[in-house]
Amino acid sequence: MAVNNRTADASQESLHRIFTVPEAPDSTLGMIEKELSENLNEFLRTHIAATEKPLLEIEKDFSDPAIPEVPSFVSEHTQFLLNKLVSQSVHTSAPSFIGHMTSALPYFMMPLSKIMIALNQNLVKIETSKAFTPLERQVLGMLHKLIFNENESFYQQWMHSADHSLGAFCSGGTIANITALWVARNTVLKPDGDFKGIAQEGLFRAMKHYGYDDLAILVSERGHYSLKKSADVLGIGRDSLISIKTDDNNRINIDHLQSTLADLKQRNIKPFAIIGIAGTTETGNVDPLDQLADIATEHDCHFHVDAAWGGATLMSNKYRHLLKGIERADSITIDAHKQLYIPMGAGMVIFKNPELMTAIEHHAEYILRKGSKDLGSHTLEGSRSGMAMLLYASMNIISRPGYELLINNSIENARYFADLIKQQIDFELVTEPELCLLTYRYVPEATQQALLIATDEERETLLELLNDLTKFIQKRQRESGKSFVSRTRITPEKWQHKITTVFRVVLANPLTTETILQDVLSEQRQLAKESTISLPKIEYLTAEIMRKKNEDRNK
Amino acid sequence: MAVNNRTADASQESLHRIFTVPEAPDSTLGMIEKELSENLNEFLRTHIAATEKPLLEIEKDFSDPAIPEVPSFVSEHTQFLLNKLVSQSVHTSAPSFIGHMTSALPYFMMPLSKIMIALNQNLVKIETSKAFTPLERQVLGMLHKLIFNENESFYQQWMHSADHSLGAFCSGGTIANITALWVARNTVLKPDGDFKGIAQEGLFRAMKHYGYDDLAILVSERGHYSLKKSADVLGIGRDSLISIKTDDNNRINIDHLQSTLADLKQRNIKPFAIIGIAGTTETGNVDPLDQLADIATEHDCHFHVDAAWGGATLMSNKYRHLLKGIERADSITIDAHKQLYIPMGAGMVIFKNPELMTAIEHHAEYILRKGSKDLGSHTLEGSRSGMAMLLYASMNIISRPGYELLINNSIENARYFADLIKQQIDFELVTEPELCLLTYRYVPEATQQALLIATDEERETLLELLNDLTKFIQKRQRESGKSFVSRTRITPEKWQHKITTVFRVVLANPLTTETILQDVLSEQRQLAKESTISLPKIEYLTAEIMRKKNEDRNK
Repeated sequence: MAVNNRTADASQESLHRIFTVPEAPDSTLGMIEKELSENLNEFLRTHIAATEKPLLEIEKDFSDPAIPEVPSFVSEHTQFLLNKLVSQSVHTSAPSFIGHMTSALPYFMMPLSKIMIALNQNLVKIETSKAFTPLERQVLGMLHKLIFNENESFYQQWMHSADHSLGAFCSGGTIANITALWVARNTVLKPDGDFKGIAQEGLFRAMKHYGYDDLAILVSERGHYSLKKSADVLGIGRDSLISIKTDDNNRINIDHLQSTLADLKQRNIKPFAIIGIAGTTETGNVDPLDQLADIATEHDCHFHVDAAWGGATLMSNKYRHLLKGIERADSITIDAHKQLYIPMGAGMVIFKNPELMTAIEHHAEYILRKGSKDLGSHTLEGSRSGMAMLLYASMNIISRPGYELLINNSIENARYFADLIKQQIDFELVTEPELCLLTYRYVPEATQQALLIATDEERETLLELLNDLTKFIQKRQRESGKSFVSRTRITPEKWQHKITTVFRVVLANPLTTETILQDVLSEQRQLAKESTISLPKIEYLTAEIMRKKNEDRNK
Repeated sequence: MAVNNRTADASQESLHRIFTVPEAPDSTLGMIEKELSENLNEFLRTHIAATEKPLLEIEKDFSDPAIPEVPSFVSEHTQFLLNKLVSQSVHTSAPSFIGHMTSALPYFMMPLSKIMIALNQNLVKIETSKAFTPLERQVLGMLHKLIFNENESFYQQWMHSADHSLGAFCSGGTIANITALWVARNTVLKPDGDFKGIAQEGLFRAMKHYGYDDLAILVSERGHYSLKKSADVLGIGRDSLISIKTDDNNRINIDHLQSTLADLKQRNIKPFAIIGIAGTTETGNVDPLDQLADIATEHDCHFHVDAAWGGATLMSNKYRHLLKGIERADSITIDAHKQLYIPMGAGMVIFKNPELMTAIEHHAEYILRKGSKDLGSHTLEGSRSGMAMLLYASMNIISRPGYELLINNSIENARYFADLIKQQIDFELVTEPELCLLTYRYVPEATQQALLIATDEERETLLELLNDLTKFIQKRQRESGKSFVSRTRITPEKWQHKITTVFRVVLANPLTTETILQDVLSEQRQLAKESTISLPKIEYLTAEIMRKKNEDRNK
């Protein structure tokens, strides 16, 4: 009965209230807002639980598929969200959480986001976004200039041109990569004589028209998984994303790339895109972009650079040389929600040539009419929010030199941490930081000795046990909630390309201090000792190996 | 010189400040925040300019492609945003702006959004989202239940299942439609014997393996333009999105669908998806979903329903029958940022069968490991924000009956407006509202008489002039900034399927009153009189036709 009464009460008037009457300042939600404004970090520190609750436990709070038949009071529901959701979320902005590519946000993002949400613009067309459209076009121009640095007249001609677009703002790097490869695919299978092009006639007819036996996209084995997804979506097939070997520094092996291209040509397979990585997700390395540009030109391939994470390095005059050659790319993916410090959901793809995106242009009767400046005629997504505003504001408030400080600080922090790891007798730096990402692991000192003299079989066993130990430490550290590093599996040359589990660290948070980094190592050293399975086995085998060696010596 | 000094000042310490020190409450940004909290509608009314500034003028403020070399003070930049961006944005939440599918937001969205932004979770994996992952899975479950109403054990089994997903939360309806058709495409060209499936081997080999000459997706000519885009992206080709005629009510013509299917079969073209529309974008009509379900079953097609806009009608027990048959769909697109009143950037695709999404499943080494509950293994997008939280909160706070009130109110408002239009002697209701969308136009009374007796040639001229007049009124009304209706072009049977420009109205804003609707018509009648080209021509031709008729009568 209570249900019906309360439902009936939710009259026309109460509907109006929902849309008009604000929360009182002393309500739960009002107080949270105030706390968030006054001290975001403190709010997060206080409200996010330090120790991890098992997922199965959390799921219990989110298990009812029925949409409630009774309304909740805002304050009541906010309290629920605080207790059950906020407290069990991930503290991405904590300076000791150095395992993610997203870190702290500048404090002004919170109020500015509120303006963005309140305006609720839809960037698909000018009619629903007005000034946001020129703003987003300018943001794309700013990124274009950061990468390609064309002259003033170039931007005057193209930035606000109705029939062109310098790129697309989108929800993230995956959509950006798909967009770039979509453009590349549609360009290589473009209209030709009677053939109306792949966009119109589809891939099957396109292949028959051009007479290829297959298509291929080439990228190093460190390519992001979104590229496989792109190959699937675009109808090219995951097998046609050809994985090229890497050298000892996780950079694409140019010889292998060349021989693969020769092989494809012989088999009548058309390689239409070569992808360089500017900051591999797992190890943070940058492919030799200049060499890739040469090869792409030679083989008439679209040259795409996936700089989703590393692209922000271009903000640093000191370090932008690390991405040399990126200015020769046909298209580039950059995520604003990674090293440009914008909230989640902001990616971009930028095209060198403003004509390129016409390969995916589309129009409709009632919007995106030909000749309109609507952004939606060149985007994979339809309706989109005004996120570009946040990047715009951030580039103005922080400025290029401010971003440079952030980038330099991250790179130098990573170098500091790499040196610190090398100084420890019981840690091994597995990959050196090229930008601000490095990998390492814990290896007891004696085991490091033992590995050098072990038989192949013993070494293999030790390496497997060390993998277990790394996994144990990483999980335990995450669960204890004080700090967080991520983990991944790579195949370093030093360990005969055996699968090696490593800690992975991204040093993008400007609040991460040297002390915090020292503490991370101390904690890991401590946690290793809590391993009751892997560590004792490692120590036993290490002792065995050393004992054998001593016996040999005494013989 | 000032540049260098200020740059140099932006030291390590000032970087820390950007991430830690909040805006003072009496700063520009602090005051805006307060205003937004206290009276959102008033803030928007005060700050969004009433009259339109030409786009070329606005572009001047957003024309510099250089990223600033000097930081801006937050308050300074906020003032710029207020003057140049906010003032020139579109007042989507004004109750007299009834031309968009996005309307006002419940006030609690603003503070809740701030929490979401501050937490900055990444829903691609549990490691970066924790409780947000079960929350999003629950939201997908809630929508699944709203549509399909499976029993409790169904949701217990599937909602939190590691290897399954009931759908995907995404940035909007376009991504949702692409995802649905991606699944359908990968299912029809699935692995078979030695053939590893389209996901792996690509569309070209898939077609050769299955021996089809082509593929086809069928949808009425009222299908959203995102479907053409989907056909392009997925390599199927826009030509293979077959457009089926509609009946007088803009619903798919079943006979034409049947004959097209027969024709395709004869030509060895495989129709693999039939799309029903639950709320056409231009006229708001709903296809006969039950009949489409029968036909899809008969022809072994995936049955997708694009309910991006109309899907929310399911919240209304009174009106959900209007979408009858939707529960037989294989997949459904629903936008939360339309009639579920969530901020821009929230769409969903829901699959009836939890196994279906395995057709697009993907894994990677370091994340989305097999057996994990990471949402990212079943999404087109990669990194995603925690938008699902806003829908979750909204469904709890507003509740199902609250949403029902909103939906019923919208539908009944549209009926009121339709009746009001019919009562006017100088307006013509062109399409009746089925949900809360209708189209109409202004036609002087005498011209309505004249159209009935005009020769074909005269009628054609009159209709063209009326199109110009409608366009004139709509633009002038938008520019004057008091109210806004959109416009589109349709081909009504009444006017021999001639292209007819109409006003298009979506009545989703609960704050839109009857008085506002009356004023919209008065203003349009007034604006018509300001037309110095179309109206005089219409009146002259009308007089001519009437004069001829009188002459004939007097003969």
